[in-house]
Amino acid sequence: MKNKGHRDQPLVLDRYLQEHRDKIDCYLDIVIPSGDAYPKVIHEAMRYSVFAGGKRIRPILALATAHALGKPLEPVMSLAAALELIHTYSLIHDDLPALDNDDYRRGKPALHKEFGEGIAILAGNSLLNLAFQHLAEQKKASSPKNSLETIRLLSQAIGTFNGMLGGQVVDLLKQGNPYTSKELKYIHRSKTGALVHAAIYCAGTLCEAQKKELTKLSSFGSLVGLAFQIVDDILDVEGFSDEMGKETGKDKSNRKATYPDLFGLDKSKRIAGRLVEEAIQHIRLFGPRGKILKELAQFISVRRF
Amino acid sequence: MKNKGHRDQPLVLDRYLQEHRDKIDCYLDIVIPSGDAYPKVIHEAMRYSVFAGGKRIRPILALATAHALGKPLEPVMSLAAALELIHTYSLIHDDLPALDNDDYRRGKPALHKEFGEGIAILAGNSLLNLAFQHLAEQKKASSPKNSLETIRLLSQAIGTFNGMLGGQVVDLLKQGNPYTSKELKYIHRSKTGALVHAAIYCAGTLCEAQKKELTKLSSFGSLVGLAFQIVDDILDVEGFSDEMGKETGKDKSNRKATYPDLFGLDKSKRIAGRLVEEAIQHIRLFGPRGKILKELAQFISVRRF
Repeated sequence: MKNKGHRDQPLVLDRYLQEHRDKIDCYLDIVIPSGDAYPKVIHEAMRYSVFAGGKRIRPILALATAHALGKPLEPVMSLAAALELIHTYSLIHDDLPALDNDDYRRGKPALHKEFGEGIAILAGNSLLNLAFQHLAEQKKASSPKNSLETIRLLSQAIGTFNGMLGGQVVDLLKQGNPYTSKELKYIHRSKTGALVHAAIYCAGTLCEAQKKELTKLSSFGSLVGLAFQIVDDILDVEGFSDEMGKETGKDKSNRKATYPDLFGLDKSKRIAGRLVEEAIQHIRLFGPRGKILKELAQFISVRRF
Repeated sequence: MKNKGHRDQPLVLDRYLQEHRDKIDCYLDIVIPSGDAYPKVIHEAMRYSVFAGGKRIRPILALATAHALGKPLEPVMSLAAALELIHTYSLIHDDLPALDNDDYRRGKPALHKEFGEGIAILAGNSLLNLAFQHLAEQKKASSPKNSLETIRLLSQAIGTFNGMLGGQVVDLLKQGNPYTSKELKYIHRSKTGALVHAAIYCAGTLCEAQKKELTKLSSFGSLVGLAFQIVDDILDVEGFSDEMGKETGKDKSNRKATYPDLFGLDKSKRIAGRLVEEAIQHIRLFGPRGKILKELAQFISVRRF
């Protein structure tokens, strides 16, 4: 499936998304070893999943943050790539039979359906490792201090302690079991929110934003990150498989902890809308330069894929 | 099973191993979140595998390298911890049904047998991530430049390109299939050799060894790393399950590419012995301070577990 812009999406944002998606894809194509490099199968598998047509929302949020700060994109490109490698690693492992057991992803068979479970486990690991390797290999675009700080923030954002891995664990434990709204919020903030927050916050630190700007970006990132996963839950109920590129209705069949399950669809939509509105207040200080970030946040709440 | 020293193992080395194993275990106990930290199950799982009684050979090689260079151990401790976290991550994932399908490890049920496959996958990921996170969090013991260089070297050593992940992939592909001696050497050098090499080489760079010393340490590390995996193959044929803490004879039942399979037991032993003898020649420049490194290399070739 090809990603299509949402029909109500402003034209400016549409063009921004397309241009920057291409930029990120060209960069990723250089970062990931060629499909001919030995051992071929693992590099083919990594490429199969990374180039399956993702939206590149996390890298684009990082680039839009640099834009809001009036900084060039180059120092943020390695972060952008690392974010997408990490995101893809998490999808590959989430789709495994022992976790969410999903057969389709981004409109194609999930990696373990195409390459087998063993290679899928190793390809996920390889993408995670490559993310850190790439950040550590930066010699020109970023100082050792900045690169190390990015690795620190990213690894914390995807770790077990309020990070992605913690969220995945509680998500797994709560499947088919009772859960509280506090646990649900923990899952969403950690599993999805922390990496979205890191995309924005790390871009801010790499661009050497001032303390006040970082505080605002941090609040913006937390709110948008939580909204992002709530909309994901909503789309799993309402969305269309062909636009989503994966089976919908899976959360319900997996008996997952979701916002629509706990609060119903309407209230979930209102919560997501409110979070995005609140988020946007935090980036007013960037003035017109913050327009793309603002539109991205709005896009996140109205997207259909 | 408790690890026992080899009966022919020199007393000095025996004491060194015991003391430094304890030192590393105390340090790991601080690095890994407490079993009470939310979400508990993942931290319990990480601890279950890390504290299952490993030999800590890789961290000890790093510490012994610092000793050979006449440097304090403190700057090397974070590397030592990262090495063991990474090694344990690789064991947890290797044991999964989709890879080697081993039920026992270090004398206890494999992690996926005790905690389920989903948690085992996530715990492996968590240990890999924690290794980089810990290195990136070093503020006092090491400069940003040195920490970043360690992350670069380690991530390359465990990557898909002549690193551990590359070795695991070819190991998986060759199970039950024909293989050449070149492929076998690639598997062993990459799957095991690269991390053993990195233990020694990264310790050298962290201790700011001179270029000549680094070259010698690099040669020593490559040879010892290859010997280490050949001895592992030999022990899988000859070893006793209770001393090994895992099932033996698994390589044969998994139809794995091994040295005993390709060259026979006697020739494999001669190859391992020769590699260690050659390795030792490279560290003569360290004089008496290199004694522990030398004895570790010899221990690797005569160990029974």
